[in-house]
Amino acid sequence: MSFADRLREDAGRIQSRLDRAVTGAEPVHDAMRHALSGGKRLRGFLVIEGAALCGGPDGLEAAAAIEALHAYSLVHDDLPSMDDDALRRGQPTVHVKWDEATAVLAGDALQTLAFELLAAPECHPDPGVRVALVASLARAAGAEGMVLGQALDIAAESAVAPLDLAAVEALQAGKTGALIEWSGRAGAVLAGADPAPLGAYARALGRAFQIADDLLDAHGDAAAMGKRAGKDAAAGKATFVSLLGVDDARGRAHALVEEACDALSPYGSRAETLRDCARFVLERDR
Amino acid sequence: MSFADRLREDAGRIQSRLDRAVTGAEPVHDAMRHALSGGKRLRGFLVIEGAALCGGPDGLEAAAAIEALHAYSLVHDDLPSMDDDALRRGQPTVHVKWDEATAVLAGDALQTLAFELLAAPECHPDPGVRVALVASLARAAGAEGMVLGQALDIAAESAVAPLDLAAVEALQAGKTGALIEWSGRAGAVLAGADPAPLGAYARALGRAFQIADDLLDAHGDAAAMGKRAGKDAAAGKATFVSLLGVDDARGRAHALVEEACDALSPYGSRAETLRDCARFVLERDR
Repeated sequence: MSFADRLREDAGRIQSRLDRAVTGAEPVHDAMRHALSGGKRLRGFLVIEGAALCGGPDGLEAAAAIEALHAYSLVHDDLPSMDDDALRRGQPTVHVKWDEATAVLAGDALQTLAFELLAAPECHPDPGVRVALVASLARAAGAEGMVLGQALDIAAESAVAPLDLAAVEALQAGKTGALIEWSGRAGAVLAGADPAPLGAYARALGRAFQIADDLLDAHGDAAAMGKRAGKDAAAGKATFVSLLGVDDARGRAHALVEEACDALSPYGSRAETLRDCARFVLERDR
Repeated sequence: MSFADRLREDAGRIQSRLDRAVTGAEPVHDAMRHALSGGKRLRGFLVIEGAALCGGPDGLEAAAAIEALHAYSLVHDDLPSMDDDALRRGQPTVHVKWDEATAVLAGDALQTLAFELLAAPECHPDPGVRVALVASLARAAGAEGMVLGQALDIAAESAVAPLDLAAVEALQAGKTGALIEWSGRAGAVLAGADPAPLGAYARALGRAFQIADDLLDAHGDAAAMGKRAGKDAAAGKATFVSLLGVDDARGRAHALVEEACDALSPYGSRAETLRDCARFVLERDR
């Protein structure tokens, strides 16, 4: 099966699982389902394919968990007090379609859902594995991980001078890198394998992913992105593109994709789907 | 040791534990520490005393976890798009002292912290116990528990007619009841004991607690509450007091406290501290 077919198949399975996870009939439940629909499911794909590569059990529950956590981060990131975005995955954002209070609450409950999915026996028969995944996701998502990245991003908007390259890298390591790296490692953890190779792969892939995002934003193709484009440049924000220029940014992204592919060498040709995934990041929309 | 001394001692231990939990130097970390300071620590007290009553290990880590989760819910509940409160525990709320974005992020990270504390080995040596606590807290806090209660509360504000008694009870069962019941059960779970008696105790106590809160709000003593008073009546919101009248509401609270005390009969006189706690709820501030 080609990478694209595999990505589509995994995304379909993750969507079905998430559809079953929220059943209530209140507006907050509708808002959660709205936030959980669509998207490439890159993080969940990494979990499922990583677990399969390591000979582990099905990673579907953990994949659904990381996508719920990612969805929470998007809903809150889009709030008027944060990035103030009206469009996400080609659809109105939650606070636009409902209201701010519903967006705050739906995001809150999506974070909770992520931990609920990881903690349930369906995720893995061994409670030690489940609790290890909860602990590592909490570290990746919390005030020293994703939230720190978001906070640095907000602070950068009101900073006198744009960030330098090291600061942008630190910010992105938290904001998007931590969850992508977790996704890579989680597959190996589910299988009881060494998480280092998949962790190194996902870390490099996450960095390439962010540069590609900056390149897309700089090109301003809102249709391909499903969200507002050109906003970083408009905000005078430092990005990999503004700091390195388009050519060097592109060169760096290519080098990172190579690094990601090399990290998979312990798995030989069986890891070709994940290598294709890394290459795909360079041409992605999200 | 008297109940009041015990509550103060437990609160001091919980505060010290939470002070160690957030170490960063960004504004979001300051905001988290601000949100984690003060409060009676009723939920954490229930965890610690319940665990001790059942002969279990120290419940301090789980107590810190439930207080982090409670703190997250207060920070988000106080946001302008939610209850729009400027005062909490006698201090300015997070969005007033910092800004809305920081309040959203600090609340988000406090929720994450709660799960991180529960999942860490320090909480309990058995990963099965830790993951059971994660799973039950996620159910209590999520879209069928606390968040549902918050969402119903927000919806009630724009409803044409005030809620009836059954609707207010359903709302409060989620909004404050679920976490208080979890706190009662958690102590027994940590000790490997049957959680039913402490669960029944805490459920009744939680309901008494909410009625007492409505009575306090109706009396409008902002100094005793450490937050804005009289706001429910001003908003035309249905409360136990508006639905039952002061005398009947007080009678119901007393009956619930008796119910809570009776639920502890399997523990005989050793449960006197928890019975004192239930009686205290009738005179509390929070």
